[in-house]
Amino acid sequence: MEIIDSPYNQYVKRFRVLQTVKGRREQGVFLAEGGRLIGEALDAGWPILAAAVCTDLLGPGAKAIAERLRSGDWPCYEMSPRAFSALSAEKTPSGVAIAAICATREMAELRPGPSHLVVAAWELRDPGNLGTLVRTAEFLGALALVAVGDCVDFFDPKTVRATAGAIFRLPLAKVSPEGFWRWTESEKVSVLAGVSDGGVTPESLDLCGPVTFLVGSEAHGLPLEAEQRAQGLVTIPRRGKVESLNAAIAAGICLYEITRQLDKQHT
Amino acid sequence: MEIIDSPYNQYVKRFRVLQTVKGRREQGVFLAEGGRLIGEALDAGWPILAAAVCTDLLGPGAKAIAERLRSGDWPCYEMSPRAFSALSAEKTPSGVAIAAICATREMAELRPGPSHLVVAAWELRDPGNLGTLVRTAEFLGALALVAVGDCVDFFDPKTVRATAGAIFRLPLAKVSPEGFWRWTESEKVSVLAGVSDGGVTPESLDLCGPVTFLVGSEAHGLPLEAEQRAQGLVTIPRRGKVESLNAAIAAGICLYEITRQLDKQHT
Repeated sequence: MEIIDSPYNQYVKRFRVLQTVKGRREQGVFLAEGGRLIGEALDAGWPILAAAVCTDLLGPGAKAIAERLRSGDWPCYEMSPRAFSALSAEKTPSGVAIAAICATREMAELRPGPSHLVVAAWELRDPGNLGTLVRTAEFLGALALVAVGDCVDFFDPKTVRATAGAIFRLPLAKVSPEGFWRWTESEKVSVLAGVSDGGVTPESLDLCGPVTFLVGSEAHGLPLEAEQRAQGLVTIPRRGKVESLNAAIAAGICLYEITRQLDKQHT
Repeated sequence: MEIIDSPYNQYVKRFRVLQTVKGRREQGVFLAEGGRLIGEALDAGWPILAAAVCTDLLGPGAKAIAERLRSGDWPCYEMSPRAFSALSAEKTPSGVAIAAICATREMAELRPGPSHLVVAAWELRDPGNLGTLVRTAEFLGALALVAVGDCVDFFDPKTVRATAGAIFRLPLAKVSPEGFWRWTESEKVSVLAGVSDGGVTPESLDLCGPVTFLVGSEAHGLPLEAEQRAQGLVTIPRRGKVESLNAAIAAGICLYEITRQLDKQHT
């Protein structure tokens, strides 16, 4: 078995370019690293194009994952620590990496029923926040998460890491603002928007599902048009002096309350 | 007016060492950067030891802050972009920095009344999570945040940034586990612990203040002893398959519900 050692090897390069938006777009695959994350991808049956393993870097948890990668239906490249470190986006490379297909859904596939919640990330800019939102939405049982407009990439390594594996379980879609509004109308989805002022508290919502909850960008919130077209505005009341909550925290509080109410309504 | 240009200048070095735990401990000061964050420190009257300004790097928002720094009761060092970049922990330095005193409270100063909540971060390891927790606690009107045991430093640049200025407003304290339990007894504070399994939902709590809410570490949660000594355990019910919520998100949901109930009880 040949072990790749050169950081300039063509396979090392093909993994490494997946750290960039351009590389991911051109190849249609993304990089996922670490035993835990890859374990989630394997368990979910996520489509994998290729794998890379470095035996010398493997921690106890990643050994079993390396074996699963070696016995899969994809090429598995064995690498030296030097070559593996060159493809890795991690400070402490784990010794296991996959090139996974950037699989998303079409909006038309999302057909929410009356107890369903779809989370909409509207031009979020921070990869960590988007990943945390995917993790929260999956944990709370949302049907899907859609990225509206010019949102940060689902498949950025920082986003993928922050999802803690939820990215391999929650249906994801990308859509333009116009496409989003068309979908809400054709699917008869109530739109709720999280805003920093002027909305009602999450617990005083009177929900009638299906519901989609809009999360605005960290710096600018939601565009005025989105607030105006929403059927309801939701605000977490502020008691202190700091200007705002972190976007992912505010969304987490609202999503918890919304899923709780939708659940209560249908049991 | 002399402009410091050398990255090896003694004042540049004194700011730069504040990026390390050791430097902060030895000097008792920490680094805060950026117009918005420093504006919060100035508005809150936070004690400042020294300031650094680089006119060539100032954006529109930071110009007024630079003026306030120049007219303060502390030395204000003028620096070239080269010197300023050498002290900064930011990828895109803002041109304003302060060395601020690491001011915390003694536990004995924290005297919670019946409607008060104190947040306890138990051995949190992620600076961003601790900072987000400080921001959330301040926003929701908590009385204070205490770091129990071997918790990440309040004054790490990543923590400070994630607080969005709340660090200059919310009383902070450090305490050993033993000191924490003594304090809860002497102040008759009910202890609630966030756990991933086996607790009640946050909305079904029956609260009698004052309350302290324990947030465990990202990887290990709370030690068994803390769960056993708590008067109540709180769990966010999971509907999806991802193993857990992000620690700061789970805490945000619980803290929102707790402050809401404490508020309702006292109005």
